[in-house]
Amino acid sequence: MEVKSQINTILGTNDYIEFLRGKSATFMLSLSTTKTLEVEGITQAGIPGLIHLTPTLDSEFVCCGEVRCLENLAETPKGVPTPALLTRAVHLLKPFSNIELLDLGMSKKPKLDYFKVHDFELNPSESINSGANIDAMSLFQKGVEFGKNYECKDDYIILAESVPAGTTTAYATARALGYDCIGKFSSSFKNSPDSIKEKTINEALENIKDKEDLFDKIGSVSDNMLIFNAGFVLGNSSKDTKLILAGGTQMAAVLLLANSIVNYMGGKLDSKNLALCTTKWVSEDENSDIKSLLEMLDFPINAYNSNFDFSTSNHPALKLYDDGEAKEGVGAGAALCYGLINGLSQEQIIKQVENFLG
Amino acid sequence: MEVKSQINTILGTNDYIEFLRGKSATFMLSLSTTKTLEVEGITQAGIPGLIHLTPTLDSEFVCCGEVRCLENLAETPKGVPTPALLTRAVHLLKPFSNIELLDLGMSKKPKLDYFKVHDFELNPSESINSGANIDAMSLFQKGVEFGKNYECKDDYIILAESVPAGTTTAYATARALGYDCIGKFSSSFKNSPDSIKEKTINEALENIKDKEDLFDKIGSVSDNMLIFNAGFVLGNSSKDTKLILAGGTQMAAVLLLANSIVNYMGGKLDSKNLALCTTKWVSEDENSDIKSLLEMLDFPINAYNSNFDFSTSNHPALKLYDDGEAKEGVGAGAALCYGLINGLSQEQIIKQVENFLG
Repeated sequence: MEVKSQINTILGTNDYIEFLRGKSATFMLSLSTTKTLEVEGITQAGIPGLIHLTPTLDSEFVCCGEVRCLENLAETPKGVPTPALLTRAVHLLKPFSNIELLDLGMSKKPKLDYFKVHDFELNPSESINSGANIDAMSLFQKGVEFGKNYECKDDYIILAESVPAGTTTAYATARALGYDCIGKFSSSFKNSPDSIKEKTINEALENIKDKEDLFDKIGSVSDNMLIFNAGFVLGNSSKDTKLILAGGTQMAAVLLLANSIVNYMGGKLDSKNLALCTTKWVSEDENSDIKSLLEMLDFPINAYNSNFDFSTSNHPALKLYDDGEAKEGVGAGAALCYGLINGLSQEQIIKQVENFLG
Repeated sequence: MEVKSQINTILGTNDYIEFLRGKSATFMLSLSTTKTLEVEGITQAGIPGLIHLTPTLDSEFVCCGEVRCLENLAETPKGVPTPALLTRAVHLLKPFSNIELLDLGMSKKPKLDYFKVHDFELNPSESINSGANIDAMSLFQKGVEFGKNYECKDDYIILAESVPAGTTTAYATARALGYDCIGKFSSSFKNSPDSIKEKTINEALENIKDKEDLFDKIGSVSDNMLIFNAGFVLGNSSKDTKLILAGGTQMAAVLLLANSIVNYMGGKLDSKNLALCTTKWVSEDENSDIKSLLEMLDFPINAYNSNFDFSTSNHPALKLYDDGEAKEGVGAGAALCYGLINGLSQEQIIKQVENFLG
């Protein structure tokens, strides 16, 4: 009946997201650096030479509307501004009740005074082409503990991420776990640097070819965000708090990892409080297939994308999103869903984003 | 100072509704089928032959924006769409914090996953012309218990209904209770089928002419929604939760019934947290008189109507509302009041409703 629905259902029914309409949310941003980003040409998620700062800058901008560790907002060489703009725009128009940060190994801490930063005493992980060197079991357990013990004062949690080169580590992780996922992971590039990515992932997979233990493998080819959040998902599933994974194929990889760990341990995951929300740019991307990734899970999952694009904007930097650059990150898709189920219109959000760019 | 006030006060002062401005609401929809709807020509609240499904379809549409037990939204033979459109429009623009459903005997359960549906193990009630056959005392007590024990997480409750043929059972109930209410009950028709209604009500009243006990009488001529909600009103009155009865003369009948029961039991009802909100189409209806019905209560009551109509719309199906069809239902009047005291304009709401109709 609705001419254009605000939210598109990728998998499941729209009940989960409709149930959250009008409810309050804690926005949680998981921040991590993997030195995989140093592989030449592998990512454009930030300012060349300073991409390791992207999580820091994104978190400062979402929280306070300014970047403090650098003069400018992270943007790609083509001038695509960080999706943090979208998240911040929604937060200005219809604020999240709470923002908290998860420091999962950043190269530089954000300069923030009042915001809660959960510190898990982690360093950036190494590049996966030489072995990420993560103590995966310990990190996973930290995630489980946090998910179990975190007390959300709002109706639900939106769990987002900022991890440059994170689609590469996500892809490598899903491959290491044996999922049939070739060509199904997205990229921040319109024209994904497949050969660089493939080479890096193949080197990573070569490193683990003699490993048997799941956590051993993962610790070599993954990143801190993926492993911690797989634990978070499992820890949270024992509670009655709704949790939205805010992201595209990286968050799909979190779910695939959680799925593999549960199977490895011979358990079962109760996914009724779980969903994934992403952007239209990811769900309609012809060079990846998030739906197919989610269908590989052994549990049912509700997945949505915000029906939001920049078709009614004239700003050239924003049109690049509609052309397939950037696509997702910093919880942009879920933030848009949150805005749209709380009375915001596409026009209001576009106007706010345009305001940032001047 | 206001050129056109958003809310019109029917009875009492505007303090109650002004106090609620900006506060959060739980929208509770009571759903029930009375087989009285099967009397030929008595109601137009739905699709001919499928009117028993109206509560099911209304609840699905308010919650999720789509009807699942049928292809199309309930609309009258004249093409008047269900007032659920108004409630849903407000929920999209300024969401209720929470929606819960009361299953008070439906012919078909709504297909909903995450929404709370309170099940009271009730069947649709029989047609009043052959005796509704309701265990009124037990049902009333269920309502009292629910009203006493329900913990509202919001600032107030909006209690709405979807009961096709419900104005007939409401009218019969008020008549059975001895209220001087001839010609004061409204109808979903512009030209109310008075002879059919009168005949049905007279048959119903004939059935109870030898009955003495209040609950015996009511159990024969009423419907589940009226009896349960009379209990709800009484149960809630022992708490400090504000409760808006969202409807027209049917909700007035709930109050008249609560009033009679309290008198019958020799008690008193503290009505300070209670109000009724309806539409302009009901309060200005020349063929009924809600104000007069409310003035028969032995307790004071705040009553309001939304100052909302479709005068600035060009949509022919919507103009029928202004002509006197449909008038109220699914909490439309209270939903409009909620929208208007939370910053929405008539224009925004009309635009959203028009969007639904394409």
